[in-house]
Formats: sequence, C-alpha cells, structure tokens
Amino acid sequence: MISNRLSAAVVGAVVFTSTISLAADPLPSWNDTPPKQAILAFVERVTKEGSPDFVPVPERIATFDNDGTLWCEMPYYVQLQFALERVKDLAPQHPEWKEKGPFASLLRGDTKNLIAGGTRAILEVVAATQSGMTTTEYHQMVNHWIATAKNPITGRPVLEMVYQPMLELLAYLRANDFKTFIVSGSGVDFMRPWTEQIYGIPPEQVMGSRGKLKFERQNGQPVLVKLPELDFVDDKEGKPIGIQEQIGRRPIAAFGNSVGDREMLEWTQAGGGARLMMLVHHDDAAREFAYGPDSKIGTFSDSLMDEAEEKKWTIISMKDDWRQIFAFEKK
Amino acid sequence: MISNRLSAAVVGAVVFTSTISLAADPLPSWNDTPPKQAILAFVERVTKEGSPDFVPVPERIATFDNDGTLWCEMPYYVQLQFALERVKDLAPQHPEWKEKGPFASLLRGDTKNLIAGGTRAILEVVAATQSGMTTTEYHQMVNHWIATAKNPITGRPVLEMVYQPMLELLAYLRANDFKTFIVSGSGVDFMRPWTEQIYGIPPEQVMGSRGKLKFERQNGQPVLVKLPELDFVDDKEGKPIGIQEQIGRRPIAAFGNSVGDREMLEWTQAGGGARLMMLVHHDDAAREFAYGPDSKIGTFSDSLMDEAEEKKWTIISMKDDWRQIFAFEKK
Repeated sequence: MISNRLSAAVVGAVVFTSTISLAADPLPSWNDTPPKQAILAFVERVTKEGSPDFVPVPERIATFDNDGTLWCEMPYYVQLQFALERVKDLAPQHPEWKEKGPFASLLRGDTKNLIAGGTRAILEVVAATQSGMTTTEYHQMVNHWIATAKNPITGRPVLEMVYQPMLELLAYLRANDFKTFIVSGSGVDFMRPWTEQIYGIPPEQVMGSRGKLKFERQNGQPVLVKLPELDFVDDKEGKPIGIQEQIGRRPIAAFGNSVGDREMLEWTQAGGGARLMMLVHHDDAAREFAYGPDSKIGTFSDSLMDEAEEKKWTIISMKDDWRQIFAFEKK
Repeated sequence: MISNRLSAAVVGAVVFTSTISLAADPLPSWNDTPPKQAILAFVERVTKEGSPDFVPVPERIATFDNDGTLWCEMPYYVQLQFALERVKDLAPQHPEWKEKGPFASLLRGDTKNLIAGGTRAILEVVAATQSGMTTTEYHQMVNHWIATAKNPITGRPVLEMVYQPMLELLAYLRANDFKTFIVSGSGVDFMRPWTEQIYGIPPEQVMGSRGKLKFERQNGQPVLVKLPELDFVDDKEGKPIGIQEQIGRRPIAAFGNSVGDREMLEWTQAGGGARLMMLVHHDDAAREFAYGPDSKIGTFSDSLMDEAEEKKWTIISMKDDWRQIFAFEKK
C-alpha cells in the first residue's frame, strides 16, 4: 500500500466530490455539452429496467486507457520519466550504454528519437531498466518513486495530474454497477501500486504491457523475477487481445485519447447494442496541453479524428467540455 | 450465454443450498473433520474485525484449480475429451494425421502417450484442433458442445460432475467478501462460456492456458482469430506467473489437487499472515475415483504429499471429508 499525504488528499477529494454530487449532478466538472449528455444518455439506456438496450450488471464493462485519458502524459509517459531516471542511476554499471543505441541518446538528454519510436521502443527501455528484481521489490521501488515524483513542466506531483472529470466519470459508472478497467500501454506492474488509490481501480482490473516473469526459489522462498524481455505490448491491436485474454468479455464502453486506442474502440463498438466510445482531445494549451491533430504532435492523428467522425465516436474537447481539469485548479 | 436445462438445474441447486444453509451450516456436504474445521477457522481469522490476522476485503483473493479440484477430471480433462472429438471431426481434412505424431495415436484411440506427455502436450493438441476461428465462433462451439457432453465413464453430463462441497466453499468464501478465481491448466476460452453458470465465477476471474490471438478486420469488422500456437501454459510455475500478471495481488487461499498446483500453493503461503492451502485427494473409488499417490496414477505424487505434510497444507480426503460429492448422489 502506498501511504503518502499528497495522494491521500487526492482520494479524499474524489470521495467527497462524488458523495455530495451524485444526488444532484454526478459530473460537476463537465460542461453541459454533447459529451456529458452522451454519457448520461448511455448510462440511462443500459441501466433502466425494461429499456431495449438494458445490459445486465455482469456485462457492464468499461475500459479506460490511462496516459492522456485518465492522467497527464506530457511531456512524456510517467513510466518513461521513471525509466529516464533509472537509466541515469544504472549508467555507471553499464559503460556500454554511453556508446550507442537508445541509451546513449537518453544519457545526453535526447528523448525525441525514443518517443518517435513509439510504445514498443519505450517499453524496451522500460524492460531493460525496470527488471532484474523480484515483483515485490519492484512494487516497493515504484511506490517509493511515485510518492514524490513531479511533473517536469508543472512541478505538480504526478499523482495529482489526474483529470477530475474522469474521476467523476469512473465513480458515476461504478455507482451504476459498471466494472471499470484500465487498459494501458504502460507496464502493468508500474500502475498497480497506485491505481486503487487514485482511481479506485483494484490491481485485478488493471491491464498493461508487461515483461516476462520467471518463477524461482530464493532461500527456499518462491519469488517472481522480472526479466528484461518484453512479453506483451498492450497497445493498438494488443488492447482488444489483452481485453479478451484477461476479461474475456467485450466492453460496452471504452475511453481513449490516441491512435493506440483505435482498435479498443473498434472492438467495443463491434459488439452491437448500446455502446459508448469516447476520445479525449488535448486542445487546451492554457490549462493542460494542446497536441491534437491541429498541433501536429503525433498521438491523436487526423485519421483517428476522421474515423471518430465516421463512426460517431464522441470527441471530448478538454477546452470546451471540461469545466475543471485538475482538482488543484482554482475555481 | 449457455442456456441448457441440465446446468440451469445445477445452478438452482447451488443457490438453494447456499440460501438455506448459510445461517446454520455453510458447508453441509463436508463432514465435521479437520479440513472443514480449517476452512471455518481461517475465514473467522481473516474476516473478524480486530483479529491480528484480519485481511481487508480487497485482499481476500482465493484461487482454485479446476480439473480435479472443482470438477471431475477422469478419465481425462474435459477439454481433452472435446479435443479428441475435434481430432476425429477434422481428420478427413488432415490425411497427414494418420501417419505419425500424437494425432495418429489419438485416431487409434490411444490417449495414454498423450496424457503421459503432460499438460503442455495436451495443450498442443488442443491448440491445433481448437483454433482457426474467431473467439466468438469458438465460444459458440464450446457452448454447443458442453451442453450435451457426458462423462465417458459415468454417463452423466460433464456440467453435473462438479463437486458439491466445493460449490459450497465458493459460496461461503464469497459470502465473506472473498473474490474467487479459477487458475487452471485448461484453456481459458474453453472455460469461460460455463464458469459463471456452474460456479458463479465471471469470465474476468477465470485464468487458464491460452493460444495466441490475432486481431483482424473481416468485412470491415474487427475480429480476434485463434491461432494454433500456444501462448501461455497455466500450469506449475505458470500459475503464480499468471496470477501475478492477471490479478497482481497474492492469494490468501489456494486450492488444488495435483503437482500442477504446487507452485500456486507455495506462492500463496509465502505471502505471510493467515493463509489457507488445500489439496483435494482423490481416494474414493466408490463415489468418484481413486488416483492419489497410493494408486500410482500420476498427478498427485508422493513428493507433493510429503511437501503438504511438511508445510502443513491441508489434505482433503474425498472419502473421509466429503459427506456428499455430487448433487445427483442419493443421500
């Protein structure tokens, strides 16, 4: 269990918000624009007894991407931030890193090439630098690091860089007997130490990329050792595959923000019946960051925007649809 | 969803049993012998507020092997029975199967070699014969087959060959806010169509072996195709690995019956605090089958019995500890 004051405060804020608001407005940080209306209408359709679109409770599965959907992914994924620090910490033991390959650029402070290489390239660096220890040791290391990690641009604790409207959405769905899952390209072992605390999502409802594990007996005790080898990349087509492998049931609602979420939304929609597919569009340079198709920074491509329009997926404009983005903002 | 009368009857019986018995005796099919006493004492220790061994609700994870632990695995795993029928059905399209390899023996009715090859060998045959279709098609095929499948020895529907004492145990643990999971060597896609119905365990709490999946678009619709390639073997050291990957939290109780469950029980016990590790011993030739270490038929070895004794795991003697094994038995 993590126990640090900052994130306890975040949880307190969420619980308080949802307690006072459910009776009146379950989504107070959302403006009364089409995305909020789409959420409320969808939940009504699938939960109202007698509705032609009624969905039994066990089938109310909602999946959420994490980076850029539930919390801030700028200037880079939080796990990459952790990896960059690990590269520096481990460099003295790896003189070969200075010579060539991705580590040489990273040690010079150049992350552009790596980020351009996409999720798999980043995960290779993660796997190399976040392995060679037991799962228990890694869990403790992540707990320790994340408790004080700050966003390099805002200086805010990363655990506070979560989107208040999405916390309300998670709570609202659960209040309507949905089971909420994270389906993220980040490492599953990296996320599980803190997802329950900041999102109310227990470890068994968190899916992510992962490295291989090895079962060993150390001093007569069984341990699981993290190997530096990638086993599963939970991105793009990996998302529906991971959902099938772990949940075994198709979501009826899915939320993402990038081309890595495209297949998850397609898979969700293809189930038929009432479905909700939404994409967070980062278009608010003043309160967060702007890197949608307009800004030409990558992850939210024009083709994704076109597909969303064609398939009637709902685009959430952070600028227009969210009254408040972070709990720490002045109101 | 499966809808066949036999298994609906089984579910009815379970619900009825647990409803009438929880107030009085939650485990009426168990004799009042050490295993039942161990279960009751353990649940009391971990659920009683103020107990030094109290475990918060989210951490009450219990994992169960399936074949031979929750239902009958004789004369062979039910999924192997399905595979043998598939081998015969598909043989005309595979003339090469007659010549050599495992299929030639199977087509001659010889299953001994395959079973001697262990879980991985069996899963290779499963992968070869239960692939080449979408996950949706496979789900329907399993539903169709299992609705009428009968145990080759008893002639009873396989869905009725579930152990009544274990159904009571699952219900009792859930009544005490445990989350119950299946962790089986059988294929996860094979089990999920019926586990909710007969055990009350939803698909996202079922883990098993699996083949690789491929994401494709067919006629513009996304599908997941089952490939004939093994991806993960959920047996022996695969069980703690699968538990870590999917649950991300260590069980506090684990139930098995064979050498394939050894590492899962070791991993459970190594967590410290109050833990419950139990092994079903098949020693009742009259009411079920006898194939423990005494009978020299494999899966429950002498070394496992020795380890159980040394580590104080509880052995459940089907003969001595279970008053009733199957719901269909005359009382």
